[in-house]
Amino acid sequence: MKTVNLDNYNNDWYKPGNKVKRIIWYLINMLFFKSSMPYCHRLKILLLRVFGAKAGRNVIIKPNVSIKYPWFLEIGDNVWIGEGVCIDNLAKVRIGNNVCISQLACILTGNHNYKKTTFDLIVSPVNIEDGVWVGARALVCPGVTLKSHSVVTAGSVISKDTESFTIYRGVPAGPIRKRIIE
Amino acid sequence: MKTVNLDNYNNDWYKPGNKVKRIIWYLINMLFFKSSMPYCHRLKILLLRVFGAKAGRNVIIKPNVSIKYPWFLEIGDNVWIGEGVCIDNLAKVRIGNNVCISQLACILTGNHNYKKTTFDLIVSPVNIEDGVWVGARALVCPGVTLKSHSVVTAGSVISKDTESFTIYRGVPAGPIRKRIIE
Amino acid sequence: MKTVNLDNYNNDWYKPGNKVKRIIWYLINMLFFKSSMPYCHRLKILLLRVFGAKAGRNVIIKPNVSIKYPWFLEIGDNVWIGEGVCIDNLAKVRIGNNVCISQLACILTGNHNYKKTTFDLIVSPVNIEDGVWVGARALVCPGVTLKSHSVVTAGSVISKDTESFTIYRGVPAGPIRKRIIE
Repeated sequence: MKTVNLDNYNNDWYKPGNKVKRIIWYLINMLFFKSSMPYCHRLKILLLRVFGAKAGRNVIIKPNVSIKYPWFLEIGDNVWIGEGVCIDNLAKVRIGNNVCISQLACILTGNHNYKKTTFDLIVSPVNIEDGVWVGARALVCPGVTLKSHSVVTAGSVISKDTESFTIYRGVPAGPIRKRIIE
Repeated sequence: MKTVNLDNYNNDWYKPGNKVKRIIWYLINMLFFKSSMPYCHRLKILLLRVFGAKAGRNVIIKPNVSIKYPWFLEIGDNVWIGEGVCIDNLAKVRIGNNVCISQLACILTGNHNYKKTTFDLIVSPVNIEDGVWVGARALVCPGVTLKSHSVVTAGSVISKDTESFTIYRGVPAGPIRKRIIE
Repeated sequence: MKTVNLDNYNNDWYKPGNKVKRIIWYLINMLFFKSSMPYCHRLKILLLRVFGAKAGRNVIIKPNVSIKYPWFLEIGDNVWIGEGVCIDNLAKVRIGNNVCISQLACILTGNHNYKKTTFDLIVSPVNIEDGVWVGARALVCPGVTLKSHSVVTAGSVISKDTESFTIYRGVPAGPIRKRIIE
């Protein structure tokens, strides 16, 4: 049976951006986002835009949020990013309009090819469409599209695309019922 | 199909307390509770009480705990709050006697009405009765009552009331066996 | 029905090491490991070894990692400990070679006997063999052995020993397929 050897791991092909820019962002993320610094939404949005993020109107970013690379982030209008959310965007994360990502939720974009002895890095974008609700401490796996107005309930792990206007629950999450908006 | 518009979200009806008090507590929570400051249980209990919490004898609060609003918190005697626990008490959280809430567990009280275009805030109290054990990184959902001596195992998500002396597991958690104490 | 009384809890038998050493490590863990301090892998490995850990070549420890007691830690060669990982090693945690523990994963070694009125502490070692991948935000329960090249997927909770070259998913996690490495 073949075995993994991380000595042979090589992600040189992955170029997430200029090193100086990444270091400066690391510090800004640490001081202004991951910290418990009270709100200051406007400053946060300004910093995100300076570092290449697209962000619409009325974006609220609570304390203790971590954003890996803002230049891989697109956020629409009326979006809430809850306390302690982790956006680990090694690849593009697109968030539409009227999206709520509740506290402690985590969005992943990085994976490894566990079928290779070299455990190759795989990065895949995440797409969160309009009106979606990612519940508290839910986990969104790499490559997933959460279709319009779908819901991932608290503590669930979603690893496949959702259908629009549908509620998902479990680890791994499956559809449990339709979301009917009155 | 109707869609969500967070521009129309309105939680003005929700009055969690005087703004100055909330800001001061935010800073105290940041410096003395969420921080890694070593134990100082007595100081923490004193601060909680000054801000309106009820707390009994032998309450132990480990580092990196977050408490949203202490005036919505009641804790009995002999209670342990583990490292990294999050008590997001927008509504009352009652914790009885001889309760253990293990590390990284999270207690939620806030929800949203996902059936409304306005995504209205819903807050519901949580009630944790005597002798309960909330396992490490378990998630307790809004409105739940954990009846006397029930157990939520590590990593489980409990979204319904438990039966007393019963062990729950899974996402969502269901009963797996009785808890028999010798 | 008998009930729990944490007043009678007694873990005096548990001697995890000299108190001064534990206090100094607590501070080092807080400042150099749990903090967002950028990488400095060599300094971290040096500190771990000074405090009794065994650590091989090419061990990478990302920011915001928490290690309870380094003298209960053995790490092989080519091991990655991801951002926000928690190693709560009240008992020995052995990590083999070529292991990846992804971000926010948590390794537990402490449990309580919920069948006793005294809620006795139980500590059990965790053994993570060569080539294992513990996925992001997975939870490894006390006493578990993750056999060679098994995988625990993101967000899963593993409470039993795994079989080698097998992938586990769910809460609680069960085997879903074999891991075939080309």
